[in-house]
Amino acid sequence: MKNINKTLLLLLMVQLLVNDAYAQKTPITIREQGSFTVGGSIKTSPGTFDPVAHGAFNPSNQPSEGQTLHGDHATVFYQVPENPRKLPLVFWHGFGQSMRTWQTTPDGREGFQNIFLRRGFPVYLIDQPRRGLSGRSTEPATISAATDDQLWFGIFRLGTGTKFYPEVQFSKDPEALNQFFRQMAPDTGPLKIDLNIAAVSALFEKIGAGVLVTHSHSGGQGWLTALKTDKIRAIASFEPGSNFVFPQGEVPKPIEYLGGALSAAGVTMEEFKGLTEIPIIIYFGDYIPDHPVENPGQEQWRAALQMAKLWTATVNKYGGDVTLVHLPEKGFKGNTHFPMSDLNNVQVADLLSEWLKEKGLD
Amino acid sequence: MKNINKTLLLLLMVQLLVNDAYAQKTPITIREQGSFTVGGSIKTSPGTFDPVAHGAFNPSNQPSEGQTLHGDHATVFYQVPENPRKLPLVFWHGFGQSMRTWQTTPDGREGFQNIFLRRGFPVYLIDQPRRGLSGRSTEPATISAATDDQLWFGIFRLGTGTKFYPEVQFSKDPEALNQFFRQMAPDTGPLKIDLNIAAVSALFEKIGAGVLVTHSHSGGQGWLTALKTDKIRAIASFEPGSNFVFPQGEVPKPIEYLGGALSAAGVTMEEFKGLTEIPIIIYFGDYIPDHPVENPGQEQWRAALQMAKLWTATVNKYGGDVTLVHLPEKGFKGNTHFPMSDLNNVQVADLLSEWLKEKGLD
Repeated sequence: MKNINKTLLLLLMVQLLVNDAYAQKTPITIREQGSFTVGGSIKTSPGTFDPVAHGAFNPSNQPSEGQTLHGDHATVFYQVPENPRKLPLVFWHGFGQSMRTWQTTPDGREGFQNIFLRRGFPVYLIDQPRRGLSGRSTEPATISAATDDQLWFGIFRLGTGTKFYPEVQFSKDPEALNQFFRQMAPDTGPLKIDLNIAAVSALFEKIGAGVLVTHSHSGGQGWLTALKTDKIRAIASFEPGSNFVFPQGEVPKPIEYLGGALSAAGVTMEEFKGLTEIPIIIYFGDYIPDHPVENPGQEQWRAALQMAKLWTATVNKYGGDVTLVHLPEKGFKGNTHFPMSDLNNVQVADLLSEWLKEKGLD
Repeated sequence: MKNINKTLLLLLMVQLLVNDAYAQKTPITIREQGSFTVGGSIKTSPGTFDPVAHGAFNPSNQPSEGQTLHGDHATVFYQVPENPRKLPLVFWHGFGQSMRTWQTTPDGREGFQNIFLRRGFPVYLIDQPRRGLSGRSTEPATISAATDDQLWFGIFRLGTGTKFYPEVQFSKDPEALNQFFRQMAPDTGPLKIDLNIAAVSALFEKIGAGVLVTHSHSGGQGWLTALKTDKIRAIASFEPGSNFVFPQGEVPKPIEYLGGALSAAGVTMEEFKGLTEIPIIIYFGDYIPDHPVENPGQEQWRAALQMAKLWTATVNKYGGDVTLVHLPEKGFKGNTHFPMSDLNNVQVADLLSEWLKEKGLD
């Protein structure tokens, strides 16, 4: 009897240890990690630098003659897990965002950085030129510090004003919203998509073949980057919002929405054909109406989804392989403009994993 | 004979594999990693936000009435290795820099982030308020994009003008200097040390006891942060440049140097005593003269080293435990203002490890 009790106690202890192990995340083994900048330009002021006369720091009157400024590069933080899959995932943030988009979620769970590392993918996180860690710009800028959190609350489709949408996939813990607002980052120079595209294509030329994952403003820039480098093997785009390109002569009319109009641009058929040569998947979240509504935060995405549908049909018409996933139609309810950090982001990652597998990209 | 050849070939292959394994770094196993913001403030504009009238993005005329801006926080990226040592190292960058200071070196080797992870320390990398990933500021700022690389080349003591110091511990590969210049990041709001100190002390209150590692401008701010929180168990400071505090009545005269003067400030003896309660180590690199010279890039550090010596003596007079290491006196030649990323940074890390061990902090 005494021995049976001991055995039961031991079994119970083992059970507790096993539960504890499940509760904790398993460790991630990193073969290599680091950071670097890529691309960019150098601005040079005429004259001669005098290190004696002008070599002391003087913020109110700093002579710039004969000096350079290295700016307009992208900054990259990368991690390669042990036994990595062949193709890395290269994550490119959207407007007003940085590499933080893909890191820990606002409510403290793992983001796509950790999720896809755990699934064996090398991950590269970008801060595009003139944003975040890539702050040095060759052109000046003024940062207004204007209050605009509620504007983005609406455009990022958490809700309207300060009120969350019902059943939105975003934590109601006030600290989550605090963290979400604080992950924004201003432009430290004029936003120029050509600079961004140059830096990101330089990144692919440096690291070789990979899969580009874009979000929002980087979506359209991603299509244009794929025209500059043949190292992009596939693109997964979360809610691409602008810069759609069509063959010249097939550019649709601008799509009007409350607060603006979404235009597309034309490229030669030869350029356009580049977009038919790689698999592409596009995801859109919830709260996107299919008819005009009195809510600018939703309207912009009604236009983007409509344009994405036209674009998908056009690329596929010319032999492309674009899949457009409107998440609510797959049973994913409540997704904001940030499916990669929403409460159901692991399930969203599962969708992406399945597609990568289906396309032989994992 | 045939068999002997086969055996030799096999041995050779094994040897090659072993060499390859040595050439590669061993993997790092991460128990946990992530990012978050800490501290900060909220600015609110009077009025009422109208999500219909003002809910569309309009960069040229964005109404701010009734909206908030969350800003002035620090952003932190952290990694905890398996079987971690008890106290984390919290790395705080200097002026014009970001968490990049502690990541991959300009010439592509591992920085203190990886080096100390490999030695079992949890590492926390900070972007202070209004810098890098912590770009949101509650006050506006203009970024001038003035050319100033050569100014910093001098102040960071790589050399003078565009010419490296002889035997400097910095790679002569032009790409290393390119990367070095591009790791700079501008202020996205007015630089206010009170905001920085508030955010970093909030970080320690959140994560608990740890060792603060500072660089340059964060050096003096580090002393002041240690007066705000009792969670800082020790400080290692690389080339602290300003904000030295002394007991009221014992503040030394400003130290004049070519291009400026370095002042110290007074605090109450009660406050000052806080600095006597934790072990502190200070490191200075090479090319710092002990008498006035015609080189502003060196002069500033002559003043800082002199002030640090006065400060060390004063803290120790009141029972403190400050060690000042002038690296050339230890046989470390050629160190710039960035010993953590200089060519001999592993040996510099060894010095820090030895000190942490000596003080029972590992």
